[in-house]
Amino acid sequence: MSRVAVFGAGSWGTAFSVVLADAGHDVTVWGRREEVCTTIREKHENTEYLPGVRLPDTVTATPDPARALDGAEWMVLAVPSQSLRENLAQWSALVPDDTVLVSLMKGVELGSLKRMSEVIAEVGGVDAERISVVSGPNLAAPIAGREPAASVVACADEEVALRLQDLVHTRAFRPYTSTDVVGCEIGGAYKNVVGLCVGMAVGLGFGDNTTASLITRGLAETARMAMALSADPLTLMGLAGLGDLVATCSSPLSRNRTFGEKLGRGMTTEEVVASTRQVAEGAKSCASIRDLARQIGVDAPVAEAVTEVVQGRMQAQDMVEAFIERATKHERD
Amino acid sequence: MSRVAVFGAGSWGTAFSVVLADAGHDVTVWGRREEVCTTIREKHENTEYLPGVRLPDTVTATPDPARALDGAEWMVLAVPSQSLRENLAQWSALVPDDTVLVSLMKGVELGSLKRMSEVIAEVGGVDAERISVVSGPNLAAPIAGREPAASVVACADEEVALRLQDLVHTRAFRPYTSTDVVGCEIGGAYKNVVGLCVGMAVGLGFGDNTTASLITRGLAETARMAMALSADPLTLMGLAGLGDLVATCSSPLSRNRTFGEKLGRGMTTEEVVASTRQVAEGAKSCASIRDLARQIGVDAPVAEAVTEVVQGRMQAQDMVEAFIERATKHERD
Repeated sequence: MSRVAVFGAGSWGTAFSVVLADAGHDVTVWGRREEVCTTIREKHENTEYLPGVRLPDTVTATPDPARALDGAEWMVLAVPSQSLRENLAQWSALVPDDTVLVSLMKGVELGSLKRMSEVIAEVGGVDAERISVVSGPNLAAPIAGREPAASVVACADEEVALRLQDLVHTRAFRPYTSTDVVGCEIGGAYKNVVGLCVGMAVGLGFGDNTTASLITRGLAETARMAMALSADPLTLMGLAGLGDLVATCSSPLSRNRTFGEKLGRGMTTEEVVASTRQVAEGAKSCASIRDLARQIGVDAPVAEAVTEVVQGRMQAQDMVEAFIERATKHERD
Repeated sequence: MSRVAVFGAGSWGTAFSVVLADAGHDVTVWGRREEVCTTIREKHENTEYLPGVRLPDTVTATPDPARALDGAEWMVLAVPSQSLRENLAQWSALVPDDTVLVSLMKGVELGSLKRMSEVIAEVGGVDAERISVVSGPNLAAPIAGREPAASVVACADEEVALRLQDLVHTRAFRPYTSTDVVGCEIGGAYKNVVGLCVGMAVGLGFGDNTTASLITRGLAETARMAMALSADPLTLMGLAGLGDLVATCSSPLSRNRTFGEKLGRGMTTEEVVASTRQVAEGAKSCASIRDLARQIGVDAPVAEAVTEVVQGRMQAQDMVEAFIERATKHERD
């Protein structure tokens, strides 16, 4: 039994704390807002971000980072990717020296174009063997409902990956180890962007043949970027690549797909944001992924086009049609 | 403009004849049953297998193979995979010498364990450069409805692949060329089996996290077999692998997924067959794919388990749970 601090009381942080509690650990969720923490503590429910799920008694919550980290052997990070740097800067002095940091975040930082593990290393002053990632086809609500799911737990140090696997292994949640942190992170970040693209096609009324083609193209683009960053292409064909992508693109529960669907139906980004509680990661991170692709010289038509639509410079319809209308050629070109 | 004979008046053969007619060709569909042909000829509709779609005037139909093949530059084969050998044996003497054969079939022959292109070569006495394959995320009804879709057209001879691309290219249907016939055929045959497996999970009430994991595992198994047969692994990551698989597993229109769903809800194979007009390919071909995997020494747990369920020796529930319950390990193992 370990003490685990989960930073971030959104739907995925909360659902993951259910996994941790089911695995037998003491979990303290840190939440920015006092009232969310109070409800978790007193009503055993996150009524705002994961309504309807009774949280185990071993899950508590606090808005005080020092209390959350007190004695924590593991620090799980589940804050929005674009606020990680600012948040972690405030917490890093509180993190015990041998605590392992676990990223649940899926995005690339705007401006610096760094992956989440890179931001953690830089801001937290943490070595690679203390930074790990969980990524896979893990829509939050079904995970909290103990629906069976598999995932990848990755760390450059395989020993740590094995410890993390042991930490989060339950009857319903099946973690597979990997040492390919980069592949997992690129897969996780990119699927949000592809999810937006597929959502737009769905919102425009296109069917399964079209969305399957877009998913295929999106995964190829993801693998190109991952390989340019020295990731293992097989990671992208696994649970943290293909698996996560398919779950996101298939499920009406996916925030990114839903966000895209609303854009496809003609809403503006501002209108969609105003209608949403938790903004889809892809809507914030698409520009950074596009910029990263440009920086490393990778062709990224999906990230380019999705960013144009999200930023209001292109209609979703024109984007989807452009993908369909482009000249036929050899599949590899 | 070419003359094209389409052998097989099922839903995919009929939908493909719409693509061919839209591309400007004269199409003659051969159908086994006189009344289906008469309806196509006189009512411009295949009321039995593709109801509600008005077929172009340049599509006609006949139960006479000689008439269908008269002057045909292309012979499209869209019969059930297990009856190809018997059918083609009756037709091969009628096929003009320079006619290119195009396989739309997705399966592996029981007993011989041959792919469709191998059966064509053997029975038709046709060289590899006259045998081609079309495969991709192409659910029949949306294709007939001119919903945008992409596909792979493959032939060992790239020149022929390019001619085929030109033949079937329309505003809605986008063919990409490939020379990897084996990869396309294994992707097409295997996705039916994985589609059954995913359908069972859906029928049992599992959600998108679970099905995404099964799809991921299924594609890895497909790629293993394809690579053992010297296919290009990238083909499996493309439209004829991942794309076709995702479309099949996502769509309620997929016969294989639907067949699996019924098994998942507790029906027996006999009951599902009795309730279905066109039996799902995977239900007939799963045993041959399993046998092929055994013959070439490839580990194929999905094909093994699906065959057990289809043949009534295992409950769908036990199969899905076995996949979920197996011990955690390194993702690559």
